[in-house]
Amino acid sequence: MASFKLAIAGLGTVGAGVLKLLETHRDRLERRIGRPLEVIAVSAQDRTRDRGVDLSRVAWFDDAVAMASDSDADAVVELIGGSDGVAHALSAAALERGRHVVTANKALIAHHGPDLAARAETSGAALCFEAAVAGGIPVIKSIRDGLIGNRIDRIAGILNGTCNYILTEMRETGAAFDAVLAEAQTLGYAEADPGFDIDGVDTAHKLVILANLAFGARIPFEAVHVEGIRGIAAEDIRYAEELGFRIKLLGLAQCDAETVSVRVHSALVPLDAPVAHVEDVFNAVVTEGDFVGRSVLEGRGAGAGPTASAVVADIADLAAGRRGPAFGVPAHTLSERTVASMESHRGACYLRLTVLDDVGVFADIARILKEEGVSMETLSQRSRDPGQKVPVVMTLHETEERAVHRALKKIGELPTVVEDPHMIRIERFDAA
Amino acid sequence: MASFKLAIAGLGTVGAGVLKLLETHRDRLERRIGRPLEVIAVSAQDRTRDRGVDLSRVAWFDDAVAMASDSDADAVVELIGGSDGVAHALSAAALERGRHVVTANKALIAHHGPDLAARAETSGAALCFEAAVAGGIPVIKSIRDGLIGNRIDRIAGILNGTCNYILTEMRETGAAFDAVLAEAQTLGYAEADPGFDIDGVDTAHKLVILANLAFGARIPFEAVHVEGIRGIAAEDIRYAEELGFRIKLLGLAQCDAETVSVRVHSALVPLDAPVAHVEDVFNAVVTEGDFVGRSVLEGRGAGAGPTASAVVADIADLAAGRRGPAFGVPAHTLSERTVASMESHRGACYLRLTVLDDVGVFADIARILKEEGVSMETLSQRSRDPGQKVPVVMTLHETEERAVHRALKKIGELPTVVEDPHMIRIERFDAA
Repeated sequence: MASFKLAIAGLGTVGAGVLKLLETHRDRLERRIGRPLEVIAVSAQDRTRDRGVDLSRVAWFDDAVAMASDSDADAVVELIGGSDGVAHALSAAALERGRHVVTANKALIAHHGPDLAARAETSGAALCFEAAVAGGIPVIKSIRDGLIGNRIDRIAGILNGTCNYILTEMRETGAAFDAVLAEAQTLGYAEADPGFDIDGVDTAHKLVILANLAFGARIPFEAVHVEGIRGIAAEDIRYAEELGFRIKLLGLAQCDAETVSVRVHSALVPLDAPVAHVEDVFNAVVTEGDFVGRSVLEGRGAGAGPTASAVVADIADLAAGRRGPAFGVPAHTLSERTVASMESHRGACYLRLTVLDDVGVFADIARILKEEGVSMETLSQRSRDPGQKVPVVMTLHETEERAVHRALKKIGELPTVVEDPHMIRIERFDAA
Repeated sequence: MASFKLAIAGLGTVGAGVLKLLETHRDRLERRIGRPLEVIAVSAQDRTRDRGVDLSRVAWFDDAVAMASDSDADAVVELIGGSDGVAHALSAAALERGRHVVTANKALIAHHGPDLAARAETSGAALCFEAAVAGGIPVIKSIRDGLIGNRIDRIAGILNGTCNYILTEMRETGAAFDAVLAEAQTLGYAEADPGFDIDGVDTAHKLVILANLAFGARIPFEAVHVEGIRGIAAEDIRYAEELGFRIKLLGLAQCDAETVSVRVHSALVPLDAPVAHVEDVFNAVVTEGDFVGRSVLEGRGAGAGPTASAVVADIADLAAGRRGPAFGVPAHTLSERTVASMESHRGACYLRLTVLDDVGVFADIARILKEEGVSMETLSQRSRDPGQKVPVVMTLHETEERAVHRALKKIGELPTVVEDPHMIRIERFDAA
């Protein structure tokens, strides 16, 4: 059978990983797919860099968009990154010409996935993005094909390896956020500019992709509530542990008849939660389907090997003729959904206050909570030196978030409360 | 597009679940697949039973093999069970006529999977068995398609929900095996005749399917080393916990250049192992791929809903035209592999001895271990009343199993050792 021809745009860590995988497992892949895979064109910035594979017989394009349009590729593999610019232009150009697009670009798919899927359907091409979410976990295929017979109402995931590494290190060493971040940067687990990871943006990209896929929706990226992990203090992790919780950065999507909720924030999860033991750079995705119940998929989230593995899985599907709509349903049937506001979110939470240990401070706090209809579940004070600053840790029963916010504002204005109150949500998982 | 026509053989719990799922999610599935699914024929023993769905317009066959041959179905869904007999005959008949077969039958696929796959390839039909292993986990598709770019060298799984439920209950309640088994039977988690589950046969069926798929091999079912959980005592679970382990029934398959090892037995796993926190009726499969690293997939193993979910996923793939070889590679290229004997297996283990606390007993045991080249890692004795029976628990460093067996035989013959020595293997998982 004729070879399946590939053009690869972007030869950074992941691009080099894809080339290496294709070379290492050439025979294995051909035996499984039933035809050879052939890289016929590449495009990257630095033509001279040694990527450990022989590219002498491959056409080199300086312009990746031109490659997408003009090369003879069956599929264009987009590994450049970024939600717009070249990545978007080349993907659109390839799809318009009926060439399949395989991408690892979560920003692109989070912002433009449904539109690109529509373009693909118009021209009869396919858009594949297994590598955009948790490369080490075949989560896109699992939700789209493996769980096709289920209504999925809830997805929860640890979707960013950098954050999970930082939170794991903080817990294991007791060190502060800044110190662990610096260490992660030295080790290459965090970028020099770590904002995308630690402020939750990367998690939000992946979450909105999973939510669109699972719910058959097109949720605007801007509707996702996004918080990161910069505010997590070493003592929060310690106190959480004493209460029987671990702190994780979660992406959470939930769907009911009227609305969807899509939110990224750190959360205390109980030790028996399905994500509590997912540590270091590992990712995990928890889905709840009406027939299948709970599934938990865990694996590496990033890195050249896992991402290349996911890219090649998409390539293999295309080469073998296994195809379907990018988001499971035809793009024009993806539904616009009302996204619930965080103020109306109901949940439990953990509070850490720093108070002057004066007579009456607890009475004031209790009065405010009562006024706002917020009820306390546990309370602990860490020391009792009158007149000194002491931390007070409490957990609140499930309440509407606007009530908690009102209470925290009033509590923060008390003269005996000397730092801004610190709130972290609690996410419980039902018994499976 | 024309409807995709189904004939369903077997309308027990799973068959009724499949009918219910197809009815509940008719619109969802049609939107995703792009064509209707239509059940045109069924075959089951009791024609009068109410299965909660309207079968009045469906052709009823008393003979399932005749249905596979003579109905006009695109795919025949085999939900009868058993490695031979009707299940095998109807699958062979359907494949010979070029009809696809979807089955949840692990015994059938464990014994005859490669042969049926070859028949399918001859006639151009497909053989699908996602539901045969861990219905709640899309593990077949994950290994075959999602991890296609990886050489997989190791698979480890908790593959039987009944055993995992029993072991979880024993740990949580401290109760003995027989009591928990009886309770599981009352709750419907264990069959009246529980042998297939608790003696490891069901796990072995699933393991050999996963190993054949992951390694591209055809391993005879008879070559699997199979032990169950009848021998696990309440105190083993307690002592294991004190040592930092949990006891699980594992299916383990490993592949190197010369041989494969395929074994089912209970094992102590450290608390940080990826399967240690998989509890109750949940299943989990751990794979290690050369590019992707470790993936862990967890979900329900059995039950009408999860199994129906897996059956329908296969049906959807076929209806949408997504197909590939049953075991990932053409059946005639599945390789016969030499299966390593358990005697040559190297591993660590836990021993529990019951000894008379006499002077000299430890000297005898230590001498025997030394003679056989077996080295002790930990030792603990539970009480010290001279002349009384006391349990002695030890763990041994990694050794070849035949040496341990020789040592245990000699130790069992000591006059001061009053019960047969009790050995459980230890399985460690490398840092991921």
